Amino acid sequence: MTVTDYDALAARLQAVEDRLAIIQLLASYGPAVDSGDAEATAGIWTADGVYDSYPAPMHGHDDLVAMVGSDLHQGLINGGCAHLIGMPQVEVHGDTAVATGYSMLCVRDEATDGFRVWRVSANRWELTRTPTGWRTTNRVNRLLDGSAQARALLGAATQ
Amino acid sequence: MTVTDYDALAARLQAVEDRLAIIQLLASYGPAVDSGDAEATAGIWTADGVYDSYPAPMHGHDDLVAMVGSDLHQGLINGGCAHLIGMPQVEVHGDTAVATGYSMLCVRDEATDGFRVWRVSANRWELTRTPTGWRTTNRVNRLLDGSAQARALLGAATQ
Amino acid sequence: MTVTDYDALAARLQAVEDRLAIIQLLASYGPAVDSGDAEATAGIWTADGVYDSYPAPMHGHDDLVAMVGSDLHQGLINGGCAHLIGMPQVEVHGDTAVATGYSMLCVRDEATDGFRVWRVSANRWELTRTPTGWRTTNRVNRLLDGSAQARALLGAATQ
Repeated sequence: MTVTDYDALAARLQAVEDRLAIIQLLASYGPAVDSGDAEATAGIWTADGVYDSYPAPMHGHDDLVAMVGSDLHQGLINGGCAHLIGMPQVEVHGDTAVATGYSMLCVRDEATDGFRVWRVSANRWELTRTPTGWRTTNRVNRLLDGSAQARALLGAATQ
Repeated sequence: MTVTDYDALAARLQAVEDRLAIIQLLASYGPAVDSGDAEATAGIWTADGVYDSYPAPMHGHDDLVAMVGSDLHQGLINGGCAHLIGMPQVEVHGDTAVATGYSMLCVRDEATDGFRVWRVSANRWELTRTPTGWRTTNRVNRLLDGSAQARALLGAATQ
Repeated sequence: MTVTDYDALAARLQAVEDRLAIIQLLASYGPAVDSGDAEATAGIWTADGVYDSYPAPMHGHDDLVAMVGSDLHQGLINGGCAHLIGMPQVEVHGDTAVATGYSMLCVRDEATDGFRVWRVSANRWELTRTPTGWRTTNRVNRLLDGSAQARALLGAATQ
């Protein structure tokens, strides 16, 4: 085995590790936010990372921590909810990456002994490699209500 | 490290790459179809690939492009919808593979400010390795309405 | 390439293989249980593995086989249902692992020509490496109805 062979194998392995690490980072969002762990939630983003969602974009860890502690979010998790992140499509380009996929928010509905699907959204996650692993620099979330904006978020993944 | 060691490591890495590539191909279906990108949708299949679904099986890229452009599909995406593909179980055998899992179609329901789960289906994807990556040769989709056919699609994965 | 280089590469590959194998094991739950394959369902657990769920915990393969054959489960699959397992967060520690994520049970609702989301639950899967692959030693499933117990299951993943 030559050094070139080794380098090629190591590069392929790195590509797999990166993709899997990003899938796992996204999979950690639900458990973090639905358990009410504000620090773990914020830690999915870089210190100045943005979460562009409803009702207003959040900038940096303080905004993310405040979202988890908000009356809206606390009401959701105390009533019963699940923030599900679908299997994303991930493209890695060196030290940055884009993940595209869906999120679904289900809320407990005692009246029907079931759950209501309240929100299904298109999501674009922009990520960067940091010394402690992949982190989100910008996540954009748009309700799939037929708007061109939500469809464009998904469409950008296939370009 | 011997040549044998290297070959064994490279084969294991190839197995991981194949499985992950197939998971990613399936993850690209939703963004392609929900953004209305007919070419990207068709490109998930081989040129003569089949999508055996409602209301009638589609054969080849022309049929798939027509499906995305149809009044039914355009109505769905303009009203708000999400074609979610669940995490599949993937078995690779050399240059072919089978992926088994679920699909869920959620449609926007303005009346309840939420979404309706319209379809949940069993899916079997048969795939082939091509010079440009894994592509679908046959996808069979059956509504999980209690029919033996849908259950058999899922059961084939565990044989 | 030195022996140390090779060992490092092989260890990284093993870590990826383990994580992917566990994701695939969880992806096999739905097809097994929704096709009514009792043996395949039980085989996701070790011989003495526990599935701590409603209405009562199941201990070992006999209990799991009985669950699949029960009137409750047979009624579900004959009426139309899907046991969806969300993309899990997986942590491997040598020969044991923990996977944390969501499960969703959708049931066919003929009246609305759609599906009802009956249960959305937090899940913690504890796994062990066996000679024939990863198996579940304990799966705990708690309805996301706002209870502290369900939230704690998710929160344990972020510690």
